[in-house]
Amino acid sequence: MALIVQKYGGTSVGTTDRIEAVAERVKRWYDEGHDLVVVLSAMSGETNRLIGLAKAISPEPEPRELDMMVSTGEQVTIALLAMALMKRGVPARSYTGAQVAIKTDSSFNKARIEAIDDARMRADLDARRVVIVAGFQGVDPEGNITTLGRGGSDTTGVALAAALKADECQIYTDVDGVYTTDPRVVPQARRLETITFEEMLEMASLGSKVLQIRSVEFAGKYHVPLRVLSSFGEGGGTLITVDAEDDMEKPVISGIAFNRDEAKLTVRGVPDTPGIASRILSPVGDANIEIDMIVQNVSADGTTDFTFTVARGDMKKAVAVLDSVANDIGARELIADDKICKVSLVGVGMRSHAGVASKMFATLAKENINIQMISTSEIKISVVVEEKYLELAVRALHTAFDLDAPAA
Amino acid sequence: MALIVQKYGGTSVGTTDRIEAVAERVKRWYDEGHDLVVVLSAMSGETNRLIGLAKAISPEPEPRELDMMVSTGEQVTIALLAMALMKRGVPARSYTGAQVAIKTDSSFNKARIEAIDDARMRADLDARRVVIVAGFQGVDPEGNITTLGRGGSDTTGVALAAALKADECQIYTDVDGVYTTDPRVVPQARRLETITFEEMLEMASLGSKVLQIRSVEFAGKYHVPLRVLSSFGEGGGTLITVDAEDDMEKPVISGIAFNRDEAKLTVRGVPDTPGIASRILSPVGDANIEIDMIVQNVSADGTTDFTFTVARGDMKKAVAVLDSVANDIGARELIADDKICKVSLVGVGMRSHAGVASKMFATLAKENINIQMISTSEIKISVVVEEKYLELAVRALHTAFDLDAPAA
Repeated sequence: MALIVQKYGGTSVGTTDRIEAVAERVKRWYDEGHDLVVVLSAMSGETNRLIGLAKAISPEPEPRELDMMVSTGEQVTIALLAMALMKRGVPARSYTGAQVAIKTDSSFNKARIEAIDDARMRADLDARRVVIVAGFQGVDPEGNITTLGRGGSDTTGVALAAALKADECQIYTDVDGVYTTDPRVVPQARRLETITFEEMLEMASLGSKVLQIRSVEFAGKYHVPLRVLSSFGEGGGTLITVDAEDDMEKPVISGIAFNRDEAKLTVRGVPDTPGIASRILSPVGDANIEIDMIVQNVSADGTTDFTFTVARGDMKKAVAVLDSVANDIGARELIADDKICKVSLVGVGMRSHAGVASKMFATLAKENINIQMISTSEIKISVVVEEKYLELAVRALHTAFDLDAPAA
Repeated sequence: MALIVQKYGGTSVGTTDRIEAVAERVKRWYDEGHDLVVVLSAMSGETNRLIGLAKAISPEPEPRELDMMVSTGEQVTIALLAMALMKRGVPARSYTGAQVAIKTDSSFNKARIEAIDDARMRADLDARRVVIVAGFQGVDPEGNITTLGRGGSDTTGVALAAALKADECQIYTDVDGVYTTDPRVVPQARRLETITFEEMLEMASLGSKVLQIRSVEFAGKYHVPLRVLSSFGEGGGTLITVDAEDDMEKPVISGIAFNRDEAKLTVRGVPDTPGIASRILSPVGDANIEIDMIVQNVSADGTTDFTFTVARGDMKKAVAVLDSVANDIGARELIADDKICKVSLVGVGMRSHAGVASKMFATLAKENINIQMISTSEIKISVVVEEKYLELAVRALHTAFDLDAPAA
């Protein structure tokens, strides 16, 4: 019999009926003889309701007090699930982050877990009780309530699984696994049986918002087998694994991620002198604008073009910052474009297979899609294209890289 | 400068606007140089909302888990008040019952406070911070969250005042003090400047629901000066004191309480034998029906009439229980009447003044109000009359005992 950590997100516990459904699922696992630790988020909408109350008082609520308040959302759902389990004859006990001793630093609103005291959980598990833990929260050395930041319940689940050396950490969500790409764009997209941690990180950061990135990093670091599955249906979901050596048959490309939330800024005709990139990007970073891709073309006439992308909502702010910078450095022109998107191939198989890039570019060329920017990493190739080509590009690549085929 | 404990109830913190108003009031006291500990209830309606969620899961929610859940209501308001104070430049910090170490027994849903660790509060007060504490909750020896039962925030306030040896415990509510009687019945009712703990207990248990009885007992026991005042207006409220010796001018009667929530049951013609009262009342108590007044008339023909009152909602249940008992003991008849009410004169002055009872009965007789039952204690005389006479009786007595006069 296994020790399983299960984590259910906000939509999975969004109503009392859904909490009853979660109780049914937990009971099935329990009745099979497994030891269970269940991590819950707040009811969907609840955290936003609470933040709304805080913002009504103060546009910048004091961080310690904000954590004191928003941590109550999970405290409600864990109690409700405990009640629902006990009604079904399953012994259960709920704990706040402070009670179960999820010890964090004192960075309110974005605390990091430092240690977990598993004594209390072990005692309950030994007594065949289901342990229910409030996600997203912990306690600092002074006994203050902290939160791990939004979506932090995934991290709680993985951290508990690591501390307890659980056999598996199951993340229940409203999708039934990780797909080769978004099925709304490519109907032939299929669920992956497995994906590596590295691939998952690339997929997640590129917009496949199935799992919190931090929890995936955490799981990879502590070798916690992580499984994403649906809390509304059955099915094995997707197992996220370390790159197993016996995985010879793994396809070159695992999936295609894309992101519409991009805007491109080009500073044209800047003097090609050392330190120019920093003079352009530093003020952007100082304005708290996150930069995604960066491309600098080789110099032609002693000047160069410098291009980078930011989140679409940050474009206007970035333009304002760059207007003065462009003047200072004597750039010829500043061009901003928010009608773009990013499409990325992701796959650990890419490491050992040449030709992925050329096949990608050829596929896009065949569809007359012009590539505006290219950026590569060890297991990813990203291109920026005009936004209107997004669906066409993703579908053409999905077919070209044999992702349409039924699962093996 | 004084150390003041202030407690604000659910309506006083029912919206973020009202919480801002509480912050303004706290700031005024703080700016005058006082040390402040503020106890809050949950936003009005919130505790019922949470209990509703629990009941949707289980008609009898597990008590430990219910406390885990309902304790969140206060956790939200304390954080919001801390934010509102800090926005105004007043240093403040909020604490749950567990954090501030309000130690209770493990009687979930109705825990009793056993000890309070004041170290953390003292440190904050010494640093000129306002301490904000979640009412109604504590922590048991195993670290489980407990609640003190409904209305328990008053008890939290008094207990903190006792532990800190505060100069005064101020209970802010939606009335501006304790009145000689309900102003909705007697427009000339006036606010009492002071009332003794004993009188307050009689007033409260008789239906003047200004303060939780338990908190008044607590305050009396630990000699905590307790003041009831309005959170919506100004004014000194009513101070609840020990019976001061210099209070020579205290009127005989302090107030008139009344209660419509009564029903009368009479078992007629029962054999007047030892143990008969117990044979009638034990099954009623066993059915969890609380008995208020009891009267047994002197025996006439070897039989007697036995009368008692219960809450109106319990009458049918009591009749069902008594039907079989009446048969067993050979009673002649069972009469139930829910068209009655109880009117009580309360006053410590009664102890040393004869004639209160006769004046009361004469006043009622003059209005042709028939008295059905009489019951007395050291500082109280209660009568049961037909419900339709309630207003008339209270008004006539209010005038007869000089309560209409303006405050001295």
